[in-house]
Amino acid sequence: MSLIAVGTMAFDAIETPFGKTDKIIGGSATYVAYAASNFVKPVQQISIVGYDYPKEEMEDLKKRGVQLEGVEMVTDKKSFFWSGRYHEDMNSRDTLITDLNVLADFNPKVPDSYQGAEFLMLGNLSPDVQLSVIKQLKTRPKLIVMDTMNFWMEIAMDGLKEVLKQVDMLMVNDAEARQLTGEYSIVKAAKKILTMGPKYLIIKKGEHGALLFDNDSVFYAPALPLEEVFDPTGAGDTFAGGFIGHLAKTGDISFENMKRAIIVGSAMASFCVEKFGPTRLKEITKADITERIQEFKDLVSFEIELG
Amino acid sequence: MSLIAVGTMAFDAIETPFGKTDKIIGGSATYVAYAASNFVKPVQQISIVGYDYPKEEMEDLKKRGVQLEGVEMVTDKKSFFWSGRYHEDMNSRDTLITDLNVLADFNPKVPDSYQGAEFLMLGNLSPDVQLSVIKQLKTRPKLIVMDTMNFWMEIAMDGLKEVLKQVDMLMVNDAEARQLTGEYSIVKAAKKILTMGPKYLIIKKGEHGALLFDNDSVFYAPALPLEEVFDPTGAGDTFAGGFIGHLAKTGDISFENMKRAIIVGSAMASFCVEKFGPTRLKEITKADITERIQEFKDLVSFEIELG
Repeated sequence: MSLIAVGTMAFDAIETPFGKTDKIIGGSATYVAYAASNFVKPVQQISIVGYDYPKEEMEDLKKRGVQLEGVEMVTDKKSFFWSGRYHEDMNSRDTLITDLNVLADFNPKVPDSYQGAEFLMLGNLSPDVQLSVIKQLKTRPKLIVMDTMNFWMEIAMDGLKEVLKQVDMLMVNDAEARQLTGEYSIVKAAKKILTMGPKYLIIKKGEHGALLFDNDSVFYAPALPLEEVFDPTGAGDTFAGGFIGHLAKTGDISFENMKRAIIVGSAMASFCVEKFGPTRLKEITKADITERIQEFKDLVSFEIELG
Repeated sequence: MSLIAVGTMAFDAIETPFGKTDKIIGGSATYVAYAASNFVKPVQQISIVGYDYPKEEMEDLKKRGVQLEGVEMVTDKKSFFWSGRYHEDMNSRDTLITDLNVLADFNPKVPDSYQGAEFLMLGNLSPDVQLSVIKQLKTRPKLIVMDTMNFWMEIAMDGLKEVLKQVDMLMVNDAEARQLTGEYSIVKAAKKILTMGPKYLIIKKGEHGALLFDNDSVFYAPALPLEEVFDPTGAGDTFAGGFIGHLAKTGDISFENMKRAIIVGSAMASFCVEKFGPTRLKEITKADITERIQEFKDLVSFEIELG
């Protein structure tokens, strides 16, 4: 089943305790596409790039079954650029540079060929942009998943709440869930978010795993304990791509299948952090993914007699 | 099989965002005993109390199959007293008062009737005291588990390393594992600790669950997402008591059974935090425990096809 991925395609310059990069490929839609394309084709990309975006990168994506008709190419501006430096704990980072460039005028147009897509991943973008994509779809997708961040809560909370009413699932980190609800307890925050529109909620906790909530159930997926997190950039988007890629592959949006999708997403994210940017995601094979998912099974499986 | 629990029996005064207590019963060995006695009898306590320690409390413990022959009663000093205030996140706290009282002279004597115990839980005490107990045992227990804390790393690291060489398992939190090894990565810290003596390591991460390591494998147990953590005092000791209680009940120290023991310990800890001090641990029934363990199974179980 087809999947639309909306988000940035951009450049990042990254410093971690392990090293630094010049401008490399990044952006939420890039990571979603690299992860999801392991599971589903086509991935229908909606984004915007400038004249400096490499053609080879576009070709790489096409070869993986990523459609680019929805990617606007601006000939007189540069691509979005972000630069950041991670602290030793890798959970916090300083933004050094944010050059919006083409992103300042991003007004996404959904191509006719994308109509009828059954899955929609709204990457972290302004609520207005997210809402505009939903409104352009003639048939509502089977599942709409939305990412967002603290920045939009600070400057566009009303718009964000409007989008929330239109989506099936919100995917945020624990700090964002707290900020959105004013509740410190993750469980209380989850309950509140589930009254704001989404039927499902994923709270990402980085190295501590992820939680999936609906009104009746909760599922806790661990993160693989890694010897080194080389570069966390894109891990959340890669998780999202693996998650919705698995759902789109199977067409099954039951809670049970969402659990599997979280394991798939977690496995993909565990690859992402092994090298700078999407480097590792470009290398891995189906066999690597299967092996990694087995590691997750081994990590949490136990048998216990009750009573 | 019998279990020796060494630790404090004490008073705590606790402030949390939800309320405060006067002096109530606390101490690491108290929590271990309340948790472990659900699974194994006898629990053979080694501790020290002052003239102010309530007789009814001793009677309660005896009724649960806890032997007190190894608890020294000092008639002219008060029991150990700790007072602390938790911050809103419940992961950090300020110590307001530490009155060592009887604990300053604690020189544990292992009663003859305790000889031959197959399981030994060394609660958080000075390394000298921990080592003294090990040396008094004529037959080495099947499994020795050791707790410790940052305080001993700061003032008695050499002694702590001596004890580490004598034990089978270390149980610490993530910050303590980092401090002990100087490694920020939990996986690297774990590898280093497994060269220092213990064959097994449990790293407790509070609301983020716990990790079990040996040289070949790792297991990640989640924590139950709780709407409210009312009072975290004693949760780590309760976890330890449930863990070693299950092992002592089954007599099985395989990695597979340690996984089960971690789930049991996590379930016990999830009760502990529901009320002040050990209040909730005194109320719960076997049926409550079974139900809670089922919740843990539901929380993490998933089925996934590979390949």
